[in-house]
Amino acid sequence: MTSVFDWLDTRADERRRAGLARRLHPRRVDSDLLDLAGNDYLGLSRDKRVTGASAAATLRWGAGSTGSRLVTGTTEAHIELEHELAKFCGAQAALVFSSGFTANLGAVTALSGKGSAIVTDAYLHASLIDGCRLSGADVAVMKHGDVAAVTHALKTRRTERALMVTDSVFSVDGDLAPLRELHEACRANGAALVVDDAHGLGVLGEGGRGAVAEAGLIGEPDVVTTVTLSKALGAQGGAVLGPRRVIKHLVDSARSFIFDTGLAPSSTTAALAALNVLKEEPALPEKVREVALTFSSRLREAGLRVTDPAAAVVSVLAPTPEQAVQWADDCRASGVWVGCFRPPSVPDGVSRLRLTARADLSDSDIERAIEVIVKHAPSAPPRT
Amino acid sequence: MTSVFDWLDTRADERRRAGLARRLHPRRVDSDLLDLAGNDYLGLSRDKRVTGASAAATLRWGAGSTGSRLVTGTTEAHIELEHELAKFCGAQAALVFSSGFTANLGAVTALSGKGSAIVTDAYLHASLIDGCRLSGADVAVMKHGDVAAVTHALKTRRTERALMVTDSVFSVDGDLAPLRELHEACRANGAALVVDDAHGLGVLGEGGRGAVAEAGLIGEPDVVTTVTLSKALGAQGGAVLGPRRVIKHLVDSARSFIFDTGLAPSSTTAALAALNVLKEEPALPEKVREVALTFSSRLREAGLRVTDPAAAVVSVLAPTPEQAVQWADDCRASGVWVGCFRPPSVPDGVSRLRLTARADLSDSDIERAIEVIVKHAPSAPPRT
Repeated sequence: MTSVFDWLDTRADERRRAGLARRLHPRRVDSDLLDLAGNDYLGLSRDKRVTGASAAATLRWGAGSTGSRLVTGTTEAHIELEHELAKFCGAQAALVFSSGFTANLGAVTALSGKGSAIVTDAYLHASLIDGCRLSGADVAVMKHGDVAAVTHALKTRRTERALMVTDSVFSVDGDLAPLRELHEACRANGAALVVDDAHGLGVLGEGGRGAVAEAGLIGEPDVVTTVTLSKALGAQGGAVLGPRRVIKHLVDSARSFIFDTGLAPSSTTAALAALNVLKEEPALPEKVREVALTFSSRLREAGLRVTDPAAAVVSVLAPTPEQAVQWADDCRASGVWVGCFRPPSVPDGVSRLRLTARADLSDSDIERAIEVIVKHAPSAPPRT
Repeated sequence: MTSVFDWLDTRADERRRAGLARRLHPRRVDSDLLDLAGNDYLGLSRDKRVTGASAAATLRWGAGSTGSRLVTGTTEAHIELEHELAKFCGAQAALVFSSGFTANLGAVTALSGKGSAIVTDAYLHASLIDGCRLSGADVAVMKHGDVAAVTHALKTRRTERALMVTDSVFSVDGDLAPLRELHEACRANGAALVVDDAHGLGVLGEGGRGAVAEAGLIGEPDVVTTVTLSKALGAQGGAVLGPRRVIKHLVDSARSFIFDTGLAPSSTTAALAALNVLKEEPALPEKVREVALTFSSRLREAGLRVTDPAAAVVSVLAPTPEQAVQWADDCRASGVWVGCFRPPSVPDGVSRLRLTARADLSDSDIERAIEVIVKHAPSAPPRT
């Protein structure tokens, strides 16, 4: 026949030997696992106010948006979500994409291009990295969190236009970028700041307005924020928030907006309903942050190597990829579902468990989770 | 303040002068426009069997998938859809992405890479072009439909591995790629064929199994097919179909799969329900093709420049971008919504109206559409 894909078997063998093969774990609807692996930070994905509005939107509008946002794929619900999202966060305007991934691709590529420069943090999300690669710009990657290096790179660039691109809350370790300092570096050097606030919206800032709003930057004329609708808002999709002229420019030129089908009415309306819940219950973000801090302090007390959570993500380091997988499997067998991140999903190459706090976890959920994670830790840390 | 985004205003002015500025046209739920602009080819987006199943899935599973497909974002519904989609089309396996855009990015990048070659058709969809740009492979773009050029490029390449990447039905003109000949060229030269069947699934092939199935290639060990769930299936999302080892490889290495939130349960279940309708009503694809042929022959008789539709897309050429916009606006004012494609959405730089046939159009819908389009044609073609 043909041996054209034989190389895939070789790669699969290599991954298996390195402990990096991946399996899908289908979720059952009646699963009784305690979920510390998803990104449904506020528990809104299954909130009846959200699912009810979403189901009604499907019956009303149809299952799909039927086309590109530029043709038939924009409904009144899309416009309303964009308006409400911008108003809530404090930006001039917003544009909804079908995913956070495509929002990041669109924002980075449409705002840069050949003859411009991009300076990034080393721990950037994959979608932003791909946006940089696609952009044709001169890309310079700085050490994680190194503002001086960013400043130097912006100052010594050879192009007129430049972007500094960063996550706000980094997705693997849950630490926060020095947004104000980065913005000062941008402002002083004629660059724009693009921030992915995927893990900040609904978790950080007053009432969950996000990390960029908390840093006082959301309305600045040289700041562009991207968010997801699939984490704290419990739905699907992504959005870009920023100055009106930036949003207008994306409508005209972001390829991942123009050449993609619009977000389904169900997801658009779910995000809008979740935003309304967030407005009605402004204490939810504080709750999720408290749960994250409880996880980190208690697991550290038990002798584990744990990151400091700036938002909802708590990272627990493992010695090897194999031990990380075993640890996660053992937790799962004991009823607790935690994320297991290995290369290439970890920027520093260190495998770890990744726990996500949720606002709707009970005290007994939290106690049970801590007990199970500590019990199965590979290096058998001291327990009291 | 800052002038960092002043260049966007310059670009906006340039686009305005060139007739290339874009506006969003929000759809009202009670719109009485006759829709010839969307891609809901079989009318399934608003089919009650589809919307009912989708709404029920939202209430049952939640509004979002809550995480990456590799973590919590795979439900039993995703696995079922993948199984049914592969079985229906005749492929070994399938993998669902959150959009056709990300499915194309994932397939092209994960199956190529530095040290490999990609040969493409010049009229490739933007998402495949972006996949090629991201891949790091040596990319050679051949004249539209030129099999000899593809063969020569594959034969004279300097790399061991190679992909030939093409749309099946080209999205702007609706013409069909010579899939069998392209596959022969690939087979003879040790390359794999990647086909985007976004506009073929549900429209071409026995019972709507798509253009790749119609060409007898869907089960071949060196063929990979991508599809959307947002056109004939009326939902949202995309999928890759192919040999099991290809699908396994994508799970392990496609960045737009790994680093993206899984498709929402609502859209996953909507696509599955639409697939079931298609199985129950295997005559729907033939109906939509007949409608497309009626449009093209009648509009050509009226003196317009019209493409030959291989599937559901009919293209009507316009003299200038401004006239295309005016023509589409006039049709819209007369109650008929047609697509208006201008650079950069047209590979040959020629602006046009783009009509899409639907299986659920009545004879009087079709008559009305033809009358309105001919009446507002910019060059006043002779009418009888």
